[in-house]
Amino acid sequence: MQIASFAEVAERYPVIFLDAYGVLKNYRGVLTGIPEVIANFEARGKEIFIVTNDASKSPEIMARAYVLAGHELIRADQHITSGMLVTDWLSAKVRNGRVAYLGKPESAYYIESAGLEALPIASCSYEERVEAIALLDDEGFDWQPDLNRALNMLRRHNVPVVIANADPTYPVNPSDVAVAVGSLGNLLEGLLHKRFIRFGKPDAIMFYYAFERALIKNPSLRRQDILMVGDTLETDILGGNKFGIDTALVLSGNTSPDDAETQIRATGIIPDHVCASILT
Amino acid sequence: MQIASFAEVAERYPVIFLDAYGVLKNYRGVLTGIPEVIANFEARGKEIFIVTNDASKSPEIMARAYVLAGHELIRADQHITSGMLVTDWLSAKVRNGRVAYLGKPESAYYIESAGLEALPIASCSYEERVEAIALLDDEGFDWQPDLNRALNMLRRHNVPVVIANADPTYPVNPSDVAVAVGSLGNLLEGLLHKRFIRFGKPDAIMFYYAFERALIKNPSLRRQDILMVGDTLETDILGGNKFGIDTALVLSGNTSPDDAETQIRATGIIPDHVCASILT
Amino acid sequence: MQIASFAEVAERYPVIFLDAYGVLKNYRGVLTGIPEVIANFEARGKEIFIVTNDASKSPEIMARAYVLAGHELIRADQHITSGMLVTDWLSAKVRNGRVAYLGKPESAYYIESAGLEALPIASCSYEERVEAIALLDDEGFDWQPDLNRALNMLRRHNVPVVIANADPTYPVNPSDVAVAVGSLGNLLEGLLHKRFIRFGKPDAIMFYYAFERALIKNPSLRRQDILMVGDTLETDILGGNKFGIDTALVLSGNTSPDDAETQIRATGIIPDHVCASILT
Amino acid sequence: MQIASFAEVAERYPVIFLDAYGVLKNYRGVLTGIPEVIANFEARGKEIFIVTNDASKSPEIMARAYVLAGHELIRADQHITSGMLVTDWLSAKVRNGRVAYLGKPESAYYIESAGLEALPIASCSYEERVEAIALLDDEGFDWQPDLNRALNMLRRHNVPVVIANADPTYPVNPSDVAVAVGSLGNLLEGLLHKRFIRFGKPDAIMFYYAFERALIKNPSLRRQDILMVGDTLETDILGGNKFGIDTALVLSGNTSPDDAETQIRATGIIPDHVCASILT
Repeated sequence: MQIASFAEVAERYPVIFLDAYGVLKNYRGVLTGIPEVIANFEARGKEIFIVTNDASKSPEIMARAYVLAGHELIRADQHITSGMLVTDWLSAKVRNGRVAYLGKPESAYYIESAGLEALPIASCSYEERVEAIALLDDEGFDWQPDLNRALNMLRRHNVPVVIANADPTYPVNPSDVAVAVGSLGNLLEGLLHKRFIRFGKPDAIMFYYAFERALIKNPSLRRQDILMVGDTLETDILGGNKFGIDTALVLSGNTSPDDAETQIRATGIIPDHVCASILT
Repeated sequence: MQIASFAEVAERYPVIFLDAYGVLKNYRGVLTGIPEVIANFEARGKEIFIVTNDASKSPEIMARAYVLAGHELIRADQHITSGMLVTDWLSAKVRNGRVAYLGKPESAYYIESAGLEALPIASCSYEERVEAIALLDDEGFDWQPDLNRALNMLRRHNVPVVIANADPTYPVNPSDVAVAVGSLGNLLEGLLHKRFIRFGKPDAIMFYYAFERALIKNPSLRRQDILMVGDTLETDILGGNKFGIDTALVLSGNTSPDDAETQIRATGIIPDHVCASILT
Repeated sequence: MQIASFAEVAERYPVIFLDAYGVLKNYRGVLTGIPEVIANFEARGKEIFIVTNDASKSPEIMARAYVLAGHELIRADQHITSGMLVTDWLSAKVRNGRVAYLGKPESAYYIESAGLEALPIASCSYEERVEAIALLDDEGFDWQPDLNRALNMLRRHNVPVVIANADPTYPVNPSDVAVAVGSLGNLLEGLLHKRFIRFGKPDAIMFYYAFERALIKNPSLRRQDILMVGDTLETDILGGNKFGIDTALVLSGNTSPDDAETQIRATGIIPDHVCASILT
Repeated sequence: MQIASFAEVAERYPVIFLDAYGVLKNYRGVLTGIPEVIANFEARGKEIFIVTNDASKSPEIMARAYVLAGHELIRADQHITSGMLVTDWLSAKVRNGRVAYLGKPESAYYIESAGLEALPIASCSYEERVEAIALLDDEGFDWQPDLNRALNMLRRHNVPVVIANADPTYPVNPSDVAVAVGSLGNLLEGLLHKRFIRFGKPDAIMFYYAFERALIKNPSLRRQDILMVGDTLETDILGGNKFGIDTALVLSGNTSPDDAETQIRATGIIPDHVCASILT
């Protein structure tokens, strides 16, 4: 396994898709040096998009994190979040009525943006009739009563369930992780023997959305012009590979320099490039 | 599918293993008429044993539920609980030290009976060194912090995890269920990619324990002399079948009369007898 | 569950995506009356596309099945096959070299169309170096030696594996099914603990391809203008629902009229419409 | 991880359970030096038992492999095979009639020993009525037609399926493996959504059988007097640990010296001892 300089790898690609967590930021916020790297990409005419499994807040709020000299470096419309796919799906398939959700109040944004009423699961009776249930975030509710509530609501009424973030865990500091809403979804799905609808990497739809948005500015863009950069083999690299674009694994997040080679061999998920971080 | 009278079916078997929940009791307690049926079994010389996936309290406390005219009908030593297998396993493999657990304080009985110190997970730091972790019950702790705590403890220290009850859910009233500790174990096991040790039906060890106890009184007992009675195909009937004893499904609990035939065909788990309840 | 007339349902949608097997054809070929129905769709200005999990032959060969009065009713370019996604992926990610495959010689079309050399697994040694392995069809090879060969090649060399058809089984006559290549892929993936790349419904990429092709003719097409029609909840309906288009389940194939309601409830996969067949 | 001398470890245990493949023999036969080690165990009064996931031939035939100076070192009655559990189960639950099987003709021994008629799957029609289906070995039949035959027989008639060997693969030479019948069972079970009955390590029943046999000679034997020795964490060590006996991992088979520590950490399956081989 060769470690390449990210600057050299990026040279070849006019469009770069970036995972946020583990690449641009960590549990403490945006990493030192990142705003300068992004400003430099833009100065050289590269288009960048964030492709993130996150439905905890709106793209507008996310955009506020990347600021240099008072200037927003990555606009809301450069963010493709798994939450947006939920909004899009609700608009297409649910259309009107109430959607019950698990998550923080801020995550209700993704239901309300579809013109629907968002109802915390905690406020529902077991008999409650809703059009769909959305699993948005692992925080903002009491797990035991609310998971039991979701389970019994779904045993009574056959409504679709969408999961906005298929990640099993997420890092909360350099050594610890927390159970993510994707795992709570797996738990419920296994008990009900039903099929939930999952959005987020590695699902290729995330990449299609970003690709479509990139095409607006550059209609002759081809997939070979795009590089997906991420810290996680199972989501960023597997998804980018499946979508048919080149992929770069960075070792600044979930995948440590010590583990990278073993994990690539063990999972069969092979990035086109491996770089220490995008700062290199 | 023929529905047989339980009294007639039971006639042929000198020893009867009974599941508790859904057979003898429900969420409100012991069913009307059950004490008389048990007293009648004993009057006719049948030996009975409870074989139950339960680690929420000790056999002594469980025995107090079955009383007729002030007389305990099913003694503590006629109870084989999945919790007892945990005690037995801890005695054999852990021997001394501290065991962290998820569950109600009463379930710590099964750790303390092995001569070990029981520590609620809530009192542990992520760095805590324990000899094993035991998942005993779904109640008695706050799920979000304590599941995250168990997850991170196990990422730091490679210790065995035992689950005292492999059931995925349990009924809390005629229409609702609750997520059981077995499902919380599945969630953690999936995230860690480790192998936990599960005790309880359908695992055949439960039946071995009951069989060994029955042999004490009747050393010439053969497996064909035993009938396992339960309300759940996936635990009672699958486990009894695998152990090689005859099985009777009763329709007084998890499996409703409307569903029984469909479920038997769908799962391929075939009881030797089907009865409405043990009161018939 | 209400059974609607397909003609009435289809009225509202200018674009119709159709599964082939179980909708237009069965094990004996195209169903009686289907060519007339298709001709009628076209006469009324509807655009139709076949969206099929099939990599056993080229779209050109598939198109020859739908003929009325010597006229090809569904052109090759109206066929979206899971095999085409494999070709597309190989073009994007492999680019040159040799790809070993399991399947009939005809299925090699999907490798050769990407400008690559197709090598039957049977002709490979365990040491063989190839760029990727493609699982294309369940026929055309000897399972025991060739699955063992694929397994050992993948234990030696870490190369990507693509599966052209994720279906677990397919019907071979009204009462019997055959194990499909998707299940052979699951078997190998489980043994290797690696992540293979699967193409085909329910994956939403299939629908994106069809959508993109429909946009060429009608650039103002919206997803709500499209109806997906299929006989299988797990692929056609789940995939269409996830892509955000309306779905119609027909009862002329995998899902029988007796089972439809039970299966919809059991799986939680809910079609917008249910019709006896597209002939109604 | 400390590597101990097996001779020193074994000193403490009057009874030793041994896996065969990877411990006593490999693909070429019994390892050099093994007969002498076994003879020495017996000279020092230790009782040994083979506990093996194997249903390819009878214990009588297996016993012929361990010979020193014309003397059979490990008698047939010291072999506990997963095939014996199948025989035992068929005797208890099927009693009479015909059992269809996948496997070599020699493996039919385990059906015929239960007094039943053994029928190769290849000789069955899809309509065939049998009392049970037994998956005994991966060889002796043509996979594609016979797996499809088993699948369709089980879709027609709801009969129990027993698997005599739950191992996913087995080594055929130092670098290659072959798909075992356990994996073929997983494939069929997944397609049918039914529950098969699996025998073999890590299931604790294997250990119970060996324990019961050891008790005959020494009725005061306790579990702490027994050591289980094997080369595979997932079967030998997990099973021995669950049964509550001490376990020793040897590095002469499936687990290489380089991988042992990583695998113990990754799986959470912790042996009490690690030794290079039983020759040390």
